[in-house]
Amino acid sequence: MKSDIGNMNTKLETRNSKLRVGIYGGSGYGGSELLRILLLHPNVEISFVTANEQAGKRVGEVHRNLAGLTDLVFSGAPDGPSSLTDVDCVFLALPHGQAMALVPTLPTHVKAIDLSGDFRLRDQQEFEKHYNRAHTAMSSQAEFVYGLTETNREAIRNARLIANPGCFATATLLGLAPLAAKGAINGRVIVDAKTGSSGSGAKAAANTHHPQRMNSFYAYKPFNHQHVPEIEQELRAIGDWTNELVFMTHSLPVSRGIFASIYVETNSDFSEPQLREMFAEFYRDSFFIRLVEGSPDINWVKTTNFCDLGFATRGRSVVVFSAIDNLVKGAAGQAVQNMNLMFGLDEKTGLMLVGTNP
Amino acid sequence: MKSDIGNMNTKLETRNSKLRVGIYGGSGYGGSELLRILLLHPNVEISFVTANEQAGKRVGEVHRNLAGLTDLVFSGAPDGPSSLTDVDCVFLALPHGQAMALVPTLPTHVKAIDLSGDFRLRDQQEFEKHYNRAHTAMSSQAEFVYGLTETNREAIRNARLIANPGCFATATLLGLAPLAAKGAINGRVIVDAKTGSSGSGAKAAANTHHPQRMNSFYAYKPFNHQHVPEIEQELRAIGDWTNELVFMTHSLPVSRGIFASIYVETNSDFSEPQLREMFAEFYRDSFFIRLVEGSPDINWVKTTNFCDLGFATRGRSVVVFSAIDNLVKGAAGQAVQNMNLMFGLDEKTGLMLVGTNP
Amino acid sequence: MKSDIGNMNTKLETRNSKLRVGIYGGSGYGGSELLRILLLHPNVEISFVTANEQAGKRVGEVHRNLAGLTDLVFSGAPDGPSSLTDVDCVFLALPHGQAMALVPTLPTHVKAIDLSGDFRLRDQQEFEKHYNRAHTAMSSQAEFVYGLTETNREAIRNARLIANPGCFATATLLGLAPLAAKGAINGRVIVDAKTGSSGSGAKAAANTHHPQRMNSFYAYKPFNHQHVPEIEQELRAIGDWTNELVFMTHSLPVSRGIFASIYVETNSDFSEPQLREMFAEFYRDSFFIRLVEGSPDINWVKTTNFCDLGFATRGRSVVVFSAIDNLVKGAAGQAVQNMNLMFGLDEKTGLMLVGTNP
Amino acid sequence: MKSDIGNMNTKLETRNSKLRVGIYGGSGYGGSELLRILLLHPNVEISFVTANEQAGKRVGEVHRNLAGLTDLVFSGAPDGPSSLTDVDCVFLALPHGQAMALVPTLPTHVKAIDLSGDFRLRDQQEFEKHYNRAHTAMSSQAEFVYGLTETNREAIRNARLIANPGCFATATLLGLAPLAAKGAINGRVIVDAKTGSSGSGAKAAANTHHPQRMNSFYAYKPFNHQHVPEIEQELRAIGDWTNELVFMTHSLPVSRGIFASIYVETNSDFSEPQLREMFAEFYRDSFFIRLVEGSPDINWVKTTNFCDLGFATRGRSVVVFSAIDNLVKGAAGQAVQNMNLMFGLDEKTGLMLVGTNP
Repeated sequence: MKSDIGNMNTKLETRNSKLRVGIYGGSGYGGSELLRILLLHPNVEISFVTANEQAGKRVGEVHRNLAGLTDLVFSGAPDGPSSLTDVDCVFLALPHGQAMALVPTLPTHVKAIDLSGDFRLRDQQEFEKHYNRAHTAMSSQAEFVYGLTETNREAIRNARLIANPGCFATATLLGLAPLAAKGAINGRVIVDAKTGSSGSGAKAAANTHHPQRMNSFYAYKPFNHQHVPEIEQELRAIGDWTNELVFMTHSLPVSRGIFASIYVETNSDFSEPQLREMFAEFYRDSFFIRLVEGSPDINWVKTTNFCDLGFATRGRSVVVFSAIDNLVKGAAGQAVQNMNLMFGLDEKTGLMLVGTNP
Repeated sequence: MKSDIGNMNTKLETRNSKLRVGIYGGSGYGGSELLRILLLHPNVEISFVTANEQAGKRVGEVHRNLAGLTDLVFSGAPDGPSSLTDVDCVFLALPHGQAMALVPTLPTHVKAIDLSGDFRLRDQQEFEKHYNRAHTAMSSQAEFVYGLTETNREAIRNARLIANPGCFATATLLGLAPLAAKGAINGRVIVDAKTGSSGSGAKAAANTHHPQRMNSFYAYKPFNHQHVPEIEQELRAIGDWTNELVFMTHSLPVSRGIFASIYVETNSDFSEPQLREMFAEFYRDSFFIRLVEGSPDINWVKTTNFCDLGFATRGRSVVVFSAIDNLVKGAAGQAVQNMNLMFGLDEKTGLMLVGTNP
Repeated sequence: MKSDIGNMNTKLETRNSKLRVGIYGGSGYGGSELLRILLLHPNVEISFVTANEQAGKRVGEVHRNLAGLTDLVFSGAPDGPSSLTDVDCVFLALPHGQAMALVPTLPTHVKAIDLSGDFRLRDQQEFEKHYNRAHTAMSSQAEFVYGLTETNREAIRNARLIANPGCFATATLLGLAPLAAKGAINGRVIVDAKTGSSGSGAKAAANTHHPQRMNSFYAYKPFNHQHVPEIEQELRAIGDWTNELVFMTHSLPVSRGIFASIYVETNSDFSEPQLREMFAEFYRDSFFIRLVEGSPDINWVKTTNFCDLGFATRGRSVVVFSAIDNLVKGAAGQAVQNMNLMFGLDEKTGLMLVGTNP
Repeated sequence: MKSDIGNMNTKLETRNSKLRVGIYGGSGYGGSELLRILLLHPNVEISFVTANEQAGKRVGEVHRNLAGLTDLVFSGAPDGPSSLTDVDCVFLALPHGQAMALVPTLPTHVKAIDLSGDFRLRDQQEFEKHYNRAHTAMSSQAEFVYGLTETNREAIRNARLIANPGCFATATLLGLAPLAAKGAINGRVIVDAKTGSSGSGAKAAANTHHPQRMNSFYAYKPFNHQHVPEIEQELRAIGDWTNELVFMTHSLPVSRGIFASIYVETNSDFSEPQLREMFAEFYRDSFFIRLVEGSPDINWVKTTNFCDLGFATRGRSVVVFSAIDNLVKGAAGQAVQNMNLMFGLDEKTGLMLVGTNP
C-alpha cells in the first residue's frame, strides 16, 4: 500500500503531457481548494483562474496560504470561448446560477466540472423549486453526469460534463449507497447532518460571526435543504428507492467537516460485522472510502479526500456515520478525482492530501 | 414580566430564615456550578462543601472564577450524620456509586438532591446493566422522586429525596413530554443528541484533549448511553409509552451545551403552530421553557437554566429541537430549582442566570 | 465576604426609588451587556432602549439570550430632550462620532455615561488624529470625567458626564497605575495586548469570519491603536509619566476577553511579593481588582467585572499581566460601576456577575 | 516559481536510491508529523518506527489521519545498534532525557536528528539548570550541529548529528537573526511568544482540558522557558549578542501555531521597507521564509513548513512578528529540511505541505 502512495506523487510527467486547466471562480473556498490541489498535481498546469472582484491580484495575496507557491494572478470575467483554445478542462466554482450561462458557450473540446448546483438535477421543476430561479440550460443538463465518483465511475470516465455533488449529498449518498443498492432499506430514513462554518462560503455573514459561532449549534433549513432532491435522485438511480427521506442540517462550530448520522430501518437484522462486510464489498475499489471501527471523527478527514464510514446496529435499527471534509471530498477534491478519471489518470493522482494529528 | 425578574433577586430575606445547605463533591463541574448559584441564592447559606482531593484548599483557588467571592474552604470526606444537625439540605455531586453509600446514612431531617445516576432508575436490573455495578440501596431508591421539575412538580414539592435527571435525559424528556402525554407518537423515536466537552467532567482525558477536540465531531456509546433507561422510564410515567427509542450521543467541540434533534412520527398531521400550541399549553407554568421561532441555539442557553425548544414539521414527520446548558438545566440549575420547590420557594429563586450575547 | 455578596443582590428597593435609565444604542454588544446587567440591577428601571435598525423589535428577539426576561422593545432614534423628563441617567453605546451630536442636547438633570471614544481625550488634535473626524463638542468634553473607576472614584462620584474608558485602556491602565503613581517606571514600556473577537463588534466582518478566525492569531494597528492617547493622558494624570509607550494589539480566537502583557523596567529591583504588596495597597478598596498567583487567565474573568492582575519579576525587569472581559470591565460593567458611584450606590450593586468554571 | 514546486514532487527516484530512515518515538505529535511528511517523501523509505506503549499497533490505528496510507506497525523499544545496519538516518522524537542514552550507542554510519532538548546546549550547566537533570553524554553533544536551517546550512550539510531547534527558539531566532547578524540591536529585547495547545504534547493534561482551554489565554514559565538558553547561545553565534532577553510564553486556544511579537530597540532609525530589505537579503536563499505585508497570521502557516515574518517600526522601535506551525517548522518539518541537506537533497524535498484557506 505504501509504495502505491509513493507512486502517486512521484510519477514523472513531461511538461508537454500536462493537462491545461482553467478555474472559473477562484476566490471562494471551492476555488481556494482547487488551487491548493491543482498547483501540486503532477499532470496539471493551471492556465487561468478568474475572480471578478479580485482580478489583477496575485493568488497568494488573496489565499495567503498560497503565498510563495505560485505566481498566478486572478483574471477577470471569462472573455469567451476563443480564449479556451489551449484548455483541456475547466472547473466552475461560481455562485449558483452562473454556470448555467457559461456552460453552453464552452467549445466542445473542453471538458467541464461544475461545483455548483446548476446541473445536478434532471428535473427542471425540482431545480426551480429548490434553487429559486429559472433554469436556462436544461439541454446542456442532459449531457451532465453526476459526479459521485464511487458510484458513477464508468459514466464519469466517458463524460465531458460533470455535475459535482453537493457536500451534504456526498456524505449522505456514500453512507446510504450500499444499503440502497441492496434494496435493504425499509420505511423512512432520517439523516441528521452537521457542517462546519466553511460550508457557508468565504464571505462573512451573521451566521459565521466568530463571537457567536464559536459557541453555537443549531438546525437550519429543516426538511428543505437544496441537496435533498439530488440525494433522492441518485438513490433512485442506485437502488429501488421509494423511501421517505427526513433530512436535517445543522451548524457546527468548526471550520471544516461534515458529519452525517444516518438512521435506517433495514429489512432484516444486521450485525455490525455484516454491515461492514456489505460496505467493504461495495467499496472494494474505492481508495478514498475508509471503514473505521466505532465512529468516524471529522478531525481525521479534515483537509483530505477521505470519506470515513462507521456503523452501529441493533437488530433492524442501523446507523451509518459518515464524515468528510466539506471542501475536499465534498467539493474540490472530488472534482479533481473526477477530472483524473475523465483523462485516464489514476483517480488518486494529486489527491494524497494527508491529514494531520492533531 | 420585567418586574417579576426584579422580585426574584430583590426579595428581602432575613439571615435567620436561610436554608443551610451542604455540598458533597464540590470540585467537579457539577459542584462548581452549584457553588456559583448557591453563593448568590438569597435564601441559602452554604454550611460546607467537600472535595476529598482538594480538602483544605480555598474554593476560590480551585474554581478561580469564584476567587474574591467566598471564603469557603473545601472540607474532606463527610464525617458522619452528627455533623448534619444544622443542615437542611444536601446536594450530592459525587462520582456514580458514591451517593448509594451516603444516602442511607443521612438523618431524616435532611433533604437530599443527588446529581448522579445512582437513584434515577426504579429497576435494579436496568441500573446494574447500565452502570455496571451492584446497587446497594434500592430501599432508599424507593423514596426518591425523579427531579424533572417541569413534569414532576407536585411530587418534588413533597419529596425528601430527589434523583436529579441526567443532562441528556433532561433535554430529551422536555422535548418529548408534551407529545408523549398526548399519546401522539407513532413508531420509533430517534434522538440525535450532541454534548459539549464539559459533559465529560473536570478531569482531563484523551477525548477532551484540546488539540484534537477543537476540530472533532464524533458519535459515542451508540444505542446504550446510560441515560436511555431513565428516559424510557419517565416517558412511561408521562404517557403511554411503548415506542422504540433510538438514542445516539455525539461530542461537540464547545465547552457547554446539549442539543437534541428529536425525530418523531405522529399519529396525525401537525403544523408547526399546532405543535407550538400543544407545547405552550403543556409548559404554561414553566418559566424556564422557552419556545423559540426556528431552531434553538446552544449559544442562547449557555450558563442559564433555560431549555429552548423549537419545531419543524412535515405532515406526520415532526422534529423537536431541544437546547440546554448541560451543567445548569442539565445538572446544578435544575437541582436548585428542585430545592426551591422542596422548601416552598418560588422555583426561579436564585436562578436568574442571564445568558450573554455573544 | 460572603454576606457582603448576599447584600448586594438582596437589597429591598421600592419601585419609587429606582433610577430611570435610558440606553442609546442597544443592539450592539455594549448595549447587549448593558441590558443584561441593568435588567437585574435592583435600583434601576430601564425607561427606553434605542436601536435604529431594530426599532420596533422586541429586545429578546435581537438578543436571544434575553428572551423571556423582558418585554422591552427597541425604540427608534431619540426624539429630543423632551422625552427625557423622567430620566435620571443615559448610557450612550453608539458608534464613534454619534455621542458628540447627542450630548450637548441632553437636559442638565440627566447624567450621561458615554461608552464610545468621543469624549475621552482632552486634546482635540489627538482626538482628530486618532478618530479621523472633527470634534464638534469640545466644550462639552471639558465637563467629562474619565471613568476608570479605580483611579478616579471621587471625581466620578461628582460627575454629571462620564467618558467610559476603552477596553484596551482599562486593562493597560489598571496594570500600570500603581507603578506610575509611584514614579517607579524607567524608560519605555511595552504593552503586548490581545483581544477576543467580540472586540470587533456585533456586525460580521472579514476579520471575524469564523472559518478563518478560529485558527488565527495576528497583530493589527501597530503603535497606533486609538486607545494609546487615552492611556498616555491618564498615565500623566496618575503619575509623572514621560515614558515611551509601545502598544501592540493582537487578535485572539476567543469570543470574549483581553489579556495585556505589560513589560516595564523599574527604577529599582522588585521581588514579586514587593510588587504584589504595592498593588494590594493601591487597590485596597477595589473589590473588582483581584491579585492572582502566577498568571491570570481570561477564562476566569469572562462575563464578569473583575480585572485579574498577576506578576513576574527579574531584578528591574517587571511584567504585569492584566486580564478583563472586554465587554464588562472593558465596557458595560465599568459603565454601571460608574453609574452606581454617581448616584450614591455601592459600586458593586448589580455587578455580582459570577464567572463560570469551565 | 510554479515549475519549481512541480519539480519537488515529481522527481523520479528509483527505489534503490531511497534513504532508509528510522523514527524513535512515533506516537507523539512530533512522531505523527514526521510520519505524515516522510510517508510521502520521494526519497525516503521508513524502516521502523518505535512507540513503547503502542508497540504492535498499526500506525493508522494510533494516528487515525494515516489510516489507509500505510501498513507500518509500531515496534517496541529499540533493540540495539545491530538492527540499524541498513539504516541511513534516524529521527529521535523521544521525551527529554532519552536521546542522551541512545545517541552514544548509534553506529557511526547512521546520521541522527534529535527533536528533543537533549543536545541543543553546549553548556552543561545551562542544560542541567533548565532541564533539571544531569547530562550524561556531553562528549556526543560536541558533535552536534544546531539545526536552525536558515542560519546554519553549511554546517548542517556536513553534520552527522543535528540538534533540532525548539519551537519557540525557531520562531524567535528567525525573527531576530538578521538584526543580530548586523549588530543592529540596542538594549534589551522583549519576546512575547504564544503557542497553540499541541505544544503541550499528545497526552491529555489539565492545561489542555478542552472545556477550559477553549476560552483561555494565560502566561506561563515567566523568564525561564527552557528555550531561552538555546536562543541566547545561537544569537551569540549569529552576531555579537550581549543584550538582555526578556522571554515570555503564553498559551493560545488554537491547536497549532506559534506567534512571537519581538520588540527591539535598534541602533538607528529603521523604516519598514528598510527592515524588509535587510530581511530579504538575509533570507534570499530561504524558500521557507516568507516576508508578508502587515502582520503574519498563524492561520496561513498552519500544517506548513513556512515561517512568515512581518514588521512594524517607529523610529528605533522595531517589532518583528514571527509565525510558524510549532509541529512543522518548529519540529518535524525543520527536521526533514535538515535531513535533506545532510543527504545532498534540495531542502524543499517532501516539504511542499501546502496550507489551506480556511
